Order: sequence, then structure tokens, then C-alpha cells
Amino acid sequence: MNFITFTESHLRNFTYNVFKKMGCSDEHATLATDVLVRSDLRGIDSHGVARLSGYVRLWEKNRINAKPNIKIVHETPTTATIDGDAGLGLVVAPFAMKVAIEKAEKYGSGWVSVKNSNHFGIAGYHALMAVEKDMIGISMTNASPLVAPTYANERLLGTNPMCYAFPAGKYPPVIVDMATSAAANGKLEIAQRANKPVPDGWVQDKNGENSIDPNELKNGGSLLPLGSDKDHGSHKGYGLSATVDILSAVLSG
Amino acid sequence: MNFITFTESHLRNFTYNVFKKMGCSDEHATLATDVLVRSDLRGIDSHGVARLSGYVRLWEKNRINAKPNIKIVHETPTTATIDGDAGLGLVVAPFAMKVAIEKAEKYGSGWVSVKNSNHFGIAGYHALMAVEKDMIGISMTNASPLVAPTYANERLLGTNPMCYAFPAGKYPPVIVDMATSAAANGKLEIAQRANKPVPDGWVQDKNGENSIDPNELKNGGSLLPLGSDKDHGSHKGYGLSATVDILSAVLSG
Repeated sequence: MNFITFTESHLRNFTYNVFKKMGCSDEHATLATDVLVRSDLRGIDSHGVARLSGYVRLWEKNRINAKPNIKIVHETPTTATIDGDAGLGLVVAPFAMKVAIEKAEKYGSGWVSVKNSNHFGIAGYHALMAVEKDMIGISMTNASPLVAPTYANERLLGTNPMCYAFPAGKYPPVIVDMATSAAANGKLEIAQRANKPVPDGWVQDKNGENSIDPNELKNGGSLLPLGSDKDHGSHKGYGLSATVDILSAVLSG
Repeated sequence: MNFITFTESHLRNFTYNVFKKMGCSDEHATLATDVLVRSDLRGIDSHGVARLSGYVRLWEKNRINAKPNIKIVHETPTTATIDGDAGLGLVVAPFAMKVAIEKAEKYGSGWVSVKNSNHFGIAGYHALMAVEKDMIGISMTNASPLVAPTYANERLLGTNPMCYAFPAGKYPPVIVDMATSAAANGKLEIAQRANKPVPDGWVQDKNGENSIDPNELKNGGSLLPLGSDKDHGSHKGYGLSATVDILSAVLSG
């Protein structure tokens, strides 16, 4: 493989211009760009500017509203449900986290669930917004069904990431940011680009047999929940993934 | 192995009397008994009345205060820190959950952290207290260091369980209740009693090599974080376990 290096400002300009072309406001284009570029800067190649073409494809299919009217549709002093109006998850999620932070500033904690949104980049970006205010940040999202439940061979769960971020005073924050599947889909894409096998326990073929072929998803296979290998069921990963599904999708309606 | 069957009421009477003998109040003995017996009734043998002798041993070593003065030492409208006064976790944790529920009733959510407590039984008991009020319940606790971080061979983490419990209307509640290690220590004890090997990925020997010997902990070995097997590091289980440690131990001071 050949690699080309881009400067941060080049990446930011390019990404910003793509979002502007989609019709985003200056503010939204800048924010969405920041989410993607900071992912690359954090070394999470699977969720950075490499995903930009995916957002463009969703936008071309009219599945992204570039000028969303993001609003609170239900709230209590410390909880809220937000309707993202089919906007970019990259701007809807920071809106939601801002509401949660405002509630936490007043009452000690805040929980916000979001509906009508889409791929929000790395979960860590949003959780870190709270850390910047010296708060503990938690973010999670459900995702398209690519993951088979334990012992099943049908895709039913998303890679459903969860992130916990903690301020640590003079030290860098402590951040746990992970898919609840054995591996995120983006990690599989990296293996596809490198044409390399993946570890046992990441994917299974369409018959439910474990596989190391990174292209298995194109042949009807599935990703596997965390903790899946020859010797184990993956009930814990399944449980965590279902938790994220309930907190993200069921709770927001 | 020979099995003897006990009725629920026999188990309750026996357990209650042991706690009374330790000096617990009627209320505390009844509550602690309920936590243990309900664990057995839920089929979680590893955390039920089988653990009673462990509580007695801790009490004999003066590590359990049978008449604790459990109190709130810090609070905001939706958060609190509770000092368990070295009481049984089986009574301190329900006290804490009650405070969290009261806050959630008023403000929409409540978070309580606890210090000076000990083994609290199954995490699910406490989370289910919220479900009984038609709320989502979350409970977690740090534990004695038995688990080695990814690629380490020193015990540094606890089995640090987390539980999420959701009310589901006319259906039984959805409950995810799991150690963030590959297996809880109680599961290892069951394998020891049955004299059976454990699956690869549960434990390692004192040199950090994976093992299937259920007695490995007695020889200086460690439990492993969720997701540990021959092919994988266990960084996700490590991350979840560290999250529980920070939320439980660091947050409560």
C-alpha cells in the first residue's frame, strides 16, 4: 500500500468544503469536520475523514438532512429526548451532549437520548465534551444491524459503541471508547484495505461458523459480539450491545 | 457430587439467623437474607447463600460492622456519596439505591456512589429495585484485585460487575448482570467444587500463560478480563473493568 500524508489544516479544509457542498451551515460544517479530524488525530483511522464518503452517500440517498431542525421533544430537569430531524449525527450528538451538560451543571447529572439521527463518529468526541467541563462523560449509540447475537447467524445488533470519559486533573483524561462487538466495522474495513485476515472471533460466515475472512460481511456473514471465539459464547458482549440498543433506540422512542 | 435440596423458607430462616448472630438488626438481617436468597432463586448459585460463610469470615476478622451508621456525606440534587461505615454491602447498596431512586423520582435521574462498604451480592438485586419503580436501574461495584490487566501478570483489577436493568411493561424486565472479567470468581469456585477445567480465557498462571486449571488463583495466577483468549488481547474487558473501578472507587473517594 502507498500512504499519502495530509496536514491537519488540509484535511479540515477539504472536509469542511464537502459538508458545505452538502448544504450544511458554517457552524455545522465546522463542527462535523472537527469530529472527524479529531478522530484521525486520536489515531482512530476507522472513524475519521475516511468515513466522509459514507456520509456523502447517505446524503445522496436523501438520508441526511443538511439543514436539520434539532429540537428537544420531551424533558425533565435531568433528562431529555431530542429529535435530530435526520441531521448528521456529527452535529446532533454534540447538541445532545450540550443539553446534558447544561442539566448536569444545574442538577448534578444529565441524560439525553436522541432519535432521528445517524452515524455520530467516535463516541469519545461527545463524551470528551463533558470532560472539558470537568464532568464524567458517557456516550453510546446503536448502529445498523451487522452483528449476530450469541449462537445466532442473523444480523440483529449493531456494533453499538459505548464510551466513558473521566477528567483526571493534571493528567490526560481516562477514556474507554469501544464497540461492544468484538471489533468495529471500521476495523474490518482497514483489514479489507490491507487484504489481511482478521483474528478468530471477529466475524462468522453466513452459516454461523467463525471465519478470519475480512470480506465475510459481503457474503452474508456477521460481526460477532465481544467475547466470541471458538471456546466461548459471547453472551456478555451480546448483553452490552442490547443495553446500548435499549438506552439509545428504545428510550428515545 | 451429592446435592441436598433446601426450601426457600429454610434457606431464609438459616441465613437470617446467621446475620442476627453477627449482630445485625432485624431489618438488616431480613434485607441481607433477601439479597442472597433471591440470587439463588434467580439461578446465580455463585452469589447466593453459598457466599454466607465468606461474610462470616470477614465479620470474624472485624471487617464487617454489623451495626453500621450508613449516611450521606455529600450530595447534589441528583448525586450523592454514601459512607457505608463498613456495613454489609448487602444492606449498604440497597440504602444507596433507595437514595438514587428518591432523587430520580424528583429530578428524573439519580447517581449514588458508595465508600466503606463490601461485597454486595448480585448487582442485579440493586438495579431491580429501580425497575420495581418503573425506572432503569444501573448498579456496579469494584472488587478485590484478582484480575490481571491485558498482557500483565499482576492482579490489579476486580471482577468489577456491572448491571443494567430495564422495565419492560407486561414482560419480565431485561437484565444484563455480568462481571467485566471473563468469568466471576464465583464461577471459578463452582468449577473447583466440581473439579472441572475452566474454558481457555478465564484464568492465567503466575507467569501470564493462559490456563484451564480452576485452582490457578491459589498458585499466584489471575482471572482475565472479558475477551481474553489465545488470539486476543482483552483491552475491552480491561477498559470496562477500569470504568467500574473509577465510578465505584475513585468517585466515592
